[in-house]
Formats: sequence, structure tokens, C-alpha cells
Amino acid sequence: MPDTRTQIVEAADTLFYQRGFDHTSLADIAAAVGIARGNLTYHFKAKDQILAAVIDRRLANTQAMLDAWEEAADGPAARITSFIHILIINQAKIMAHGCPVGTLSNELAKLDHAALPDAARIFTLFRSWLARQFTLLGHNDARADELALHLLGRSQGVATLATAFKDEDFIRREVAAMRDWLSTLADQP
Amino acid sequence: MPDTRTQIVEAADTLFYQRGFDHTSLADIAAAVGIARGNLTYHFKAKDQILAAVIDRRLANTQAMLDAWEEAADGPAARITSFIHILIINQAKIMAHGCPVGTLSNELAKLDHAALPDAARIFTLFRSWLARQFTLLGHNDARADELALHLLGRSQGVATLATAFKDEDFIRREVAAMRDWLSTLADQP
Repeated sequence: MPDTRTQIVEAADTLFYQRGFDHTSLADIAAAVGIARGNLTYHFKAKDQILAAVIDRRLANTQAMLDAWEEAADGPAARITSFIHILIINQAKIMAHGCPVGTLSNELAKLDHAALPDAARIFTLFRSWLARQFTLLGHNDARADELALHLLGRSQGVATLATAFKDEDFIRREVAAMRDWLSTLADQP
Repeated sequence: MPDTRTQIVEAADTLFYQRGFDHTSLADIAAAVGIARGNLTYHFKAKDQILAAVIDRRLANTQAMLDAWEEAADGPAARITSFIHILIINQAKIMAHGCPVGTLSNELAKLDHAALPDAARIFTLFRSWLARQFTLLGHNDARADELALHLLGRSQGVATLATAFKDEDFIRREVAAMRDWLSTLADQP
């Protein structure tokens, strides 16, 4: 059983994703953990502090996932394919709640929240990792970064429309199109 | 000067876009219009009724924009280009608040709000209009719909990353890439 602080951050991570950051109250988080409100505020004085901890947790989890893909997949094209396949693996969640990174970033922008650049660092982790894979495919640094952002954008767009239309065929088709696109890049350094 | 009801819907449309639906209170809307809270609730008993009116307004405004593109642009490829160029024309707003359609749809999904399918109808307007343009380029109905969804997804992804990174070069590059993609489709029916 993780300690109370960790349980709070885990519960907040889930609630922020499923219901949104602004819509989640400290009382909701305390109830999800099963602790009194006073116990929650002993660990975190304000919701913004919980948000900072949630972003740190997501950064760490994202890095761990990228490291796992790095080890598991044979070569940069297969690793980029691991990224593309999140849309299939997390399909049910994405259709229900969107992409956790994109929707948090969009929400913080509307709230004019100071943590937006921190949330964007999760995107930057993906971007840098993808760019490195494209470099390994033979593209120069500037081009590799452009390709990384392009792919990140494609997957964000699929997530948003998947949430609006709940259309599994659309997701599958777009995943296939991204793999086709990748195969043209893997051949031409 | 539009009537009070219209002023309420216009103010709510702007606030929902800039701050989010959930984060906007009835008091915020009344203050933006400069009327008493009681006057607001005379016109709309609940925020959900204002949301329904905002969605209707966005549907009407979207249809009017599509009709204007239809008239102004010469041929389907030029009309699809008008769609792609929203990303440039609305660049400042998109970097600040995202796409109004995509962010409302994402937010309503998280709130598990019954109006999500209504908000998705704004996407459907774009989708059907784009699909018709692709049909005019010589693609069959099923393929034209796939192309329309693909382009809608691309532009959504650009909007989300533009909000996170505020990177004008990225927007310009992606707009150019979409135009290149379109030019390959305009040639092969």
C-alpha cells in the first residue's frame, strides 16, 4: 500500500484526467482516497500543489514508458510504432476522456494557469524522445524535431476526434496512415 | 444593439471559449453582459440551457462560414484550403485558448455531459462540408468522408500543440504540409 501522499497524487491524477482539473475539488480527492479533508490539507495546502505533484508523476511515468519502449523495441522505427500504438492500447480511455496530456494542457490554457508550461513538459518528453528516434533513422536534428512534432500533432488530433465521435474505425485507419507515413521516412535518410 | 437574450448567448460563447464551460458561472455571464443575475435567469433558468443556445449559435456561425467559403473560393481545392487556413487566421486565439470546437468537446466528455453529441455536431458540419469538397475532387463518398476526418484530425492536433507550445513556425509548417497533402489528392481522382 503506497503512503498517503502517494495515494493522494494517484487519486488526483485519475480524477483530473477523468473529470478535469478545475472540476475536481479537494473534497473529491479526499473522498477517493478515503481520508478526511484535514488529512489531505496536511499533505497539500492547495490544489495547485497537488497539480504540481500530478505533473511530476506524469513526467516520471512518461519517462518510464519511453524507457520501456526503448528497451523492448528493436530499432527506431519499431519504437516510434510503439508511440503510435498508444492510440490503440488506450483507445477506450481516449474515447471517454481524451489524451491526458492534451486535455490537461488545453484546460490549463483556458484557466490561464501558471502550470501550463509544466504540463507542456510532458509533451516535450515525447517530442525529444521521438526526435531522437527520427535522428536514428537518419534525419538531421532540425528535421527530426519537425517530424516528432508532426507525429505528436497527428496523434493529438486523433485523440480529440475519437473523444467526439467514439469511432474505433477512424482510430484504426489513422494509426495505419501514421505507420504508412513512418515507413516512407524509415527508407529515406 | 442585440436583444438581452442574444447578448447573453454571445457573452457565454466567448467566456466558454476563453475560460471553459464549467469554469464560467452564471454570475460571470451576467457581469459580462452588465445585467443583474435575476435578469439572466429570467432568460435562462440553468447554465445547460445557455450551453444549448451557445451550441446552436456556433452551429449557425459555422454554417454561415462554410457558405461564405463555398461562394468565395473557386472550386473544391480552394475551399478546402480556406478550411486549412483557419489555423493561420485564428492563430492568436488558438494559441491562447485552443480550437473552440475541440476544447468544448473534450471538456463535455470529461464532465460526462449530455450535450457532448450536440457539440460534436459542429465537427459534423465541418466533416460533411469537407467530404462534399473531396467528392467534388473525384473521390467516392466513403473515401471523401475518410479524407475529411483525416484533415479535421490534423487541424485539431495542430490546435492542441499550438496551445501547448505557442509556436507559430509549427503552425505555418503544418499548414504547408496540409496544403501539400491536398495537392496530391486534387490530382488523383
